[in-house]
Order: sequence, then structure tokens, then C-alpha cells
Amino acid sequence: MAVRLPRGFRAGATRAGIKPSGKPDLALLVSGLPAQWAYAATQNRAAAPSIHRGRGLYATGAPLRAVVVNAGNANCATGERGFRDDARMAELAAFRLGLAPEEVLTASTGVIGVPLPVERIAAGLPQIELTPYADPFAEAILTTDLVPKVAEAEVAGARVVGIAKGSGMIHPNMATMLAFLVTDAWVPQEALREAWRGIVDRTFNQVTVDGDTSTNDLALVMANGAYGEVPPEALFQALEGVARELAKRIARDGEGATKLLVVRVVGAVTEEEARRAARAVAGSLLWKSALYGNDPNWGRILAALGNSGARFDPLRVRISLQGIPLYAGGDLPFDRERASQAMRQEVVEVLVDLGEGEGAAEAYGCDLTEGYVRINALYTT
Amino acid sequence: MAVRLPRGFRAGATRAGIKPSGKPDLALLVSGLPAQWAYAATQNRAAAPSIHRGRGLYATGAPLRAVVVNAGNANCATGERGFRDDARMAELAAFRLGLAPEEVLTASTGVIGVPLPVERIAAGLPQIELTPYADPFAEAILTTDLVPKVAEAEVAGARVVGIAKGSGMIHPNMATMLAFLVTDAWVPQEALREAWRGIVDRTFNQVTVDGDTSTNDLALVMANGAYGEVPPEALFQALEGVARELAKRIARDGEGATKLLVVRVVGAVTEEEARRAARAVAGSLLWKSALYGNDPNWGRILAALGNSGARFDPLRVRISLQGIPLYAGGDLPFDRERASQAMRQEVVEVLVDLGEGEGAAEAYGCDLTEGYVRINALYTT
Repeated sequence: MAVRLPRGFRAGATRAGIKPSGKPDLALLVSGLPAQWAYAATQNRAAAPSIHRGRGLYATGAPLRAVVVNAGNANCATGERGFRDDARMAELAAFRLGLAPEEVLTASTGVIGVPLPVERIAAGLPQIELTPYADPFAEAILTTDLVPKVAEAEVAGARVVGIAKGSGMIHPNMATMLAFLVTDAWVPQEALREAWRGIVDRTFNQVTVDGDTSTNDLALVMANGAYGEVPPEALFQALEGVARELAKRIARDGEGATKLLVVRVVGAVTEEEARRAARAVAGSLLWKSALYGNDPNWGRILAALGNSGARFDPLRVRISLQGIPLYAGGDLPFDRERASQAMRQEVVEVLVDLGEGEGAAEAYGCDLTEGYVRINALYTT
Repeated sequence: MAVRLPRGFRAGATRAGIKPSGKPDLALLVSGLPAQWAYAATQNRAAAPSIHRGRGLYATGAPLRAVVVNAGNANCATGERGFRDDARMAELAAFRLGLAPEEVLTASTGVIGVPLPVERIAAGLPQIELTPYADPFAEAILTTDLVPKVAEAEVAGARVVGIAKGSGMIHPNMATMLAFLVTDAWVPQEALREAWRGIVDRTFNQVTVDGDTSTNDLALVMANGAYGEVPPEALFQALEGVARELAKRIARDGEGATKLLVVRVVGAVTEEEARRAARAVAGSLLWKSALYGNDPNWGRILAALGNSGARFDPLRVRISLQGIPLYAGGDLPFDRERASQAMRQEVVEVLVDLGEGEGAAEAYGCDLTEGYVRINALYTT
């Protein structure tokens, strides 16, 4: 693919021997200039040391220069030792880059409960060649993902590039998902942080693969200003577009998935209720199974909506699937065979009008397949 | 099996032609004496007319005499007509039994969005033969369940019999589950209703098969006093025992399940947090998949706990599986092969000590299998 990073960013990766597969598993993303940054991290109470450390850096408000990521070992539930190992990973990366440790964010993903092989990280870091391209980094951060996920946008001459991993255990609140967005636009940190919260809530937090929330996940944005100032609203829109594109690719690449599900809810009392309603449909195992089987089973959509906490009257709800109206306060006559055919697509869209207010939102999911079960029954931690 | 109902209760069923399979699908449960009753119903906002009607009856506080159940059609999302059809089902059953309609509770389970075939119910009701046995009723209320679920207990000379259906879409808050408990003990209605709430929260609401919550479910207890007074605490204990036994059988008979999962959480700050933590583990797709694959993957248990909202410090948590300690604030050395062997059982028990307080609870679930996906991808509404 060869996606060039925005001005002033470089990245690279190596095989450090953390993944049993021997694939690239240690990666660096570096800004030549101190970058303003924002960050959203897992809400899981068993969060990994890297998440605790990241929260501490975030609280200082100081600029960030680099991220070091290992894929293959989550360094989570590794006791007190895990905190020392995480700090050591930051120190080693900082030494490699000539930075202070507190300028380097750590991220880890992979198996839980196994001590981090710090000596392999120490040996691997000097081997990383930094280039202006996103691709080696994007490949190295994958775990059970099938494909690297990179998206980009331009905004008034500045550029935005996003790189993510997902798969398995993906759910709102940063579930086993890493996302790194970088831009050469200049933006004040406070504005960036405020905008980022909403962007993450509307994109990454609306992805659900299996309802589990991981211990290690984060979504980071770094803005180094190498290009200069752009209208902040335009920048935030570009960041949201890249984040949404990555969110969809994460959902599409969910473990065992064969298609992307996009659920759009309108007519909710509030935007928050629209988000909950959309997530409930995208996360319903019964509907996800029906999606896999190409069964236009709108009863399962309605039941999931009813379980979401969003307020509505079933007699005023409307549901359509791939543009075909299925339900409007009661069963509609529709051609079941045609609706089933329309579901045999890479992307299936459900539109729900709750008929109450102005709240609207989307959620992103995938179908539930025998493949999901097989991957997770046999994937040993 | 032939389980005799408590004194003063009769039940029966017939083939009314509601299930496409032609199996028994219309059932009556009747008390010769007016019964005190308590009731818990689905929280789903798209609740069926039978649920709305039941709530209305409950609010009057008047005694109950009978329940009429159809299996095969949920009479949900059927528009205004659904409410008329539900009232008609009650009237027809009341006429058959010589009761007033407001003495008869309705319950429906099955496909959503298809009008109730009231004429078949009218034709079927006179064919029902009422006997003192629970079994024909227990068989007729099944849908995708594999086995009838009946449990019984004795308490100071009085008897308790419980009958339930489950399978699919089973989750806290009465998810596609019907449970009917009857006793010939005498108990004041107010005490019964207060106790029932707690019993349901500790048993049926701790069952999770797939996280979806249905539109039609309820758990009913009727006490007709035909035997006489017994110590209320002993009665409530017996009701809870029968409810717990039914809850376990519902979980074990989850769609596609090959084993029952019992999760016991102790050491939580509150009982409510213990319940949430236990449900989170019982409901984690990643852990349910590992359970199916006999993989003692405690990292998934810890991640699910972290996602539950229960407060704990990962460094103080202890996890054991089938009596084998796996984690105590960090990975424990354990024989992985032996732990995997220990999971090859009909019943697998997880014990978690959160190390915080006195809160304790159990939750009941099952493994996630390719069978679940197949059933739900191919089961047309």
C-alpha cells in the first residue's frame, strides 16, 4: 500500500520474537517535533500497566514524541513485575530515540498473564529502521487481525493518517483495539482533547465484535504542527472521518466475520440513546447470527432495541434493511427472498427510526459465525 | 417423569397447531382455589401485550386462578391487534375454565411479528384435559428447548413444583424464559411478592445464554394455600431452591450448549457487584468459547471481571477453576493439561474471590459452540 505519514512523523517495526509466529511484533511511531496529543483508554478495571502509565502521562499535559508498541504480549495481570517491565520498555525506546521516557507512550496487545520478554524488546529496538511510511508499523501491531488497517485524509493542506488493529474482544470502551492517528496540523492541546472524546465516542466506541472489553486498548491522536495551522473544525472532521473508516475496518475484520454491519439509528430522544440503541443491535448475538444466515429477522432487531435502554414506542418504530422497509409499528409485507438476497453483501445496513426525537448515531459490527467460535475455542492465551 | 402438582393445582396441554412442528403448544395451569401470586417480567421496552396485561393484573393485587400459555407465537410486535388478540386468549381460557378473564394470566413465546392464530387457540382450549401432573404442561411450553424442565421440593408438608422453558436469547431480566412455580402452602401476598423479587434476582436473572433479552418472559409463583401455613422463611428457601435448579437447567439447555457453567463470586464490595461480576464472566463470549475448547484461559475471566463494573484490585483477585487455583494476583504455576482435562465435564465451576468485601453471588451460563451459531443463523423467525 505504502501510505506516507504526515510531515515530521516516522515509523518502523521489527521481529523481536514476541509473537510465536515470528512475524513483526515491535514497532515505533515517532514525531520529530513535540506533538500535542489526546488519548482514550480502556475502562476495564483490570487495565494493563501500559494503560496506567499512559493515564499518568496524559495528566501531565506535556507533549508526546513517540509510541512504542509490542504485539504478542499484553503485559497484563503480570503482577507488580508488569509495571516495572512496562516502564523498562519506555526507557529502552526513549534511549533508542534519544528522548526522555516520559515523552514515550507504551502500548501492548496479546496474551494476558505472561511476563513481558523485556530482553527481546531491548534486543529488537536497535534493529527498527524508521521510515516516512505507515505500513511496517501497521503490520507489526496486528494480532489475530487478518489485514492491516490504514486510512488517510487531507485537510487544507495538512494530512491525517490513522493506523489501527482490532479483532476479537472488540466492544465500546476501547476493547482490544489500538488506534494511532497522526497529523501535521497544528492544534491547541485543549481543543484537541475535547474534540477527541466526542470523536472516539462516535467511532471507536461504537464498534462491537463480541461485547468483551479488553484490558489494553487505546486510541491516540498526535498533532505535531509540522504543516501549520488549519481550521480546527475541518481538522476534527478529518480526524473523525479517518477514525470512522478505521472503526468500520475493525468491525469488518472481527474474528470470523464475513461482513460489516452498519446500524444507523435516528429519531431517538437523545444522541446518547441513539448510540446505545445502535450498539444494542450491532451487538445482538441473535441478530448477528441471523445476519450470517441472511435471515431478515427484524424481530431480533426490535428485541435488541427494546433491551438497549433507549426510550421508544414499538408502535412508532420503523426498521429497514438494505433500504427495504420491514417493520413500521407492525410487520410490513415484504419479499422475504429478496430481502435475504439483499443481505448477501460485504456491507449490510440497518436503518432504525425510533420515532421520538432528533438523536442519531451509528454503530459498527459484524456477523457471528462458526469461525468466531473456532478461533476463540482454540486460540490458547 | 410424572411429577404431581401440589394440592389444588391441575394442568394440561394440547396440539393447537401453533407450532409448525405439530407438537403440543397450548397449555393451561389452574388452581382450584384463588392463589396469592408474585411475578417478574421482562424489562424489554418492546414487551409483548401479554406482559403489559400481566403488569395490569399484578397491580390490582387480586388473586390469580390460572395461566394460559401458547408456545410458537410470541404475539409481539403485532401492532394494536396484538393487544386485542391477547385479551381474547384470556377470555377464551376463562370461558373454558369458568373463571373471569382477570383471573387468568396469559403467556406467549415463539416467533415475533406474526399475528396470533386466535381461532386455533379457541379450537384447542376445549381439548385440553386437566390432570394433577406437571409433565404435559412442561412439554407444551418448550420452543427450541431440548428437554422439559421440572423441579420440586417439600417444605414442612407443603410442596413446591416449578416448570420452566428457556433456550436462546436468555439473559438477566427475564429473557425468553417462562417459569411457573406453584405451591400449596399459604403465604400472605405481600410477603410473597417481596421475597420473590430477591429470589428472581438471585436465580433466573443470573442466567445468561447470549446476552439478548426477550420481549415475552416472566417468572410466576402461585400459592393457593390448599395445604396450609408453613414457616415463610422455609417456604422462600424452598422456592429459591426450585428456582435455582430451573435456572441451572435453563443455562445447561442453552442453544447449542454442551455444558453448564456455574460462576461463583465472593469477596465483592456488595452483593449486587458480586452478581454483576458473576454475570460478566458467565456472559463473556471469549470465556464461553474457551470453555467450549477446554482452554483454562483465566485471562479472559479476569478481563470479563474488569468489564463488569465491580470494584477490585487485580493484584488481590484469586481465580480457580474446578477447584484448581489458576491466578492469585498474578499467574500461578498450574498443570495446563490437567486443568483442561478438568473442564471436560457436564458442569464447570469457576470460583472468583475479588478480595474486597463480603458480597457473594452465583451466575449460570453455558459454553458458546458452533451449534449456537447454526441454530440461530438458520432458525427463521
